[in-house]
Amino acid sequence: MQRLKQKIENEGVVVSESVLKVDGFLNHQIDPIMMQEIGEEFTSRFANEGVTKIVTLESSGIAPAVMAGLSLGVPVVFARKSKSLTLTDHLYSADVYSFTKQESNQISVSTDYLSKDDIVLLIDDFLANGQAVLGMVSMLEQAGSALAGIGIVIEKGFQDGGAILRSRGIQVESLAIVDSLANGEVTFRDEKASSE
Amino acid sequence: MQRLKQKIENEGVVVSESVLKVDGFLNHQIDPIMMQEIGEEFTSRFANEGVTKIVTLESSGIAPAVMAGLSLGVPVVFARKSKSLTLTDHLYSADVYSFTKQESNQISVSTDYLSKDDIVLLIDDFLANGQAVLGMVSMLEQAGSALAGIGIVIEKGFQDGGAILRSRGIQVESLAIVDSLANGEVTFRDEKASSE
Repeated sequence: MQRLKQKIENEGVVVSESVLKVDGFLNHQIDPIMMQEIGEEFTSRFANEGVTKIVTLESSGIAPAVMAGLSLGVPVVFARKSKSLTLTDHLYSADVYSFTKQESNQISVSTDYLSKDDIVLLIDDFLANGQAVLGMVSMLEQAGSALAGIGIVIEKGFQDGGAILRSRGIQVESLAIVDSLANGEVTFRDEKASSE
Repeated sequence: MQRLKQKIENEGVVVSESVLKVDGFLNHQIDPIMMQEIGEEFTSRFANEGVTKIVTLESSGIAPAVMAGLSLGVPVVFARKSKSLTLTDHLYSADVYSFTKQESNQISVSTDYLSKDDIVLLIDDFLANGQAVLGMVSMLEQAGSALAGIGIVIEKGFQDGGAILRSRGIQVESLAIVDSLANGEVTFRDEKASSE
């Protein structure tokens, strides 16, 4: 998605060889018009999958997910993050380890909002090692929901989350794939290769 | 806002005389079409205020705020919640006490995304005792930003947040004001009174 890549080039901050900050339009300040375009792009990529629901993770996944939900005409559920869940009745939940923060969080969705009749599009802001998405996939399995595919705003192509998910046969659509952050520069994967 | 009130009546769950759960379309599962209508309603109520930015609080404020941002054509900043901030350099921050959870959280916004040139519309999902909104107002004061007004999806009219804010001369626009949750029933304030 060309406009997203330009935005990343112009406004993204390369903090280290593995950390890209996009607080200016995605993770702290949000550009609603960019989010609408992202939502429409996800819709065009998953239009024929019979999606009944979008699931994302608070907080940065919410804006792109809601715009995709508006465009696809389906509800959006955001999974909640917490340090630990003492009561897990009436919840689907999963442990998610963050390599960046070196801590585990639990994520959860109420059993009221996911069922075996749902065909779910998962959306998240970043895909790195895939732990958060794998946690969401685990909750869908608990609910018996079908997985239509995964929509990612920015994939770190130099980490293995994308490969893990695609090797399971899951359709992963990342709107920008960053292959390197070496020397303070963002290098994108070739557009053609990214849609394979 | 009539459709919102109907939605609250049909899908809201009165948990106690002070707790209304709207997890079905606002706080856990999100109805994107309802959020778009809410965003447009906020836009119509604050269209002449010269708003340059919307500020909200993660996570449930994000969806209505982003839709208002899309409609008004301005960026949205979501304040982050954390148990405690050790580093407050480069941040505007405030303490917010939650009477429901009986705990304090700090909320913060990067100094990069609020300035003295901003005219800010604050948006939040609920207004009860006003602690969260007062924390956001404090961050605007730290930044020297002007406050255009406050847009609230659901105000609990039986708690004092609305009165505190309006007594300061702030324009508070709540799309639904709940005056009572007694006997398991939602009683709304009269529409006319609510727009005073």
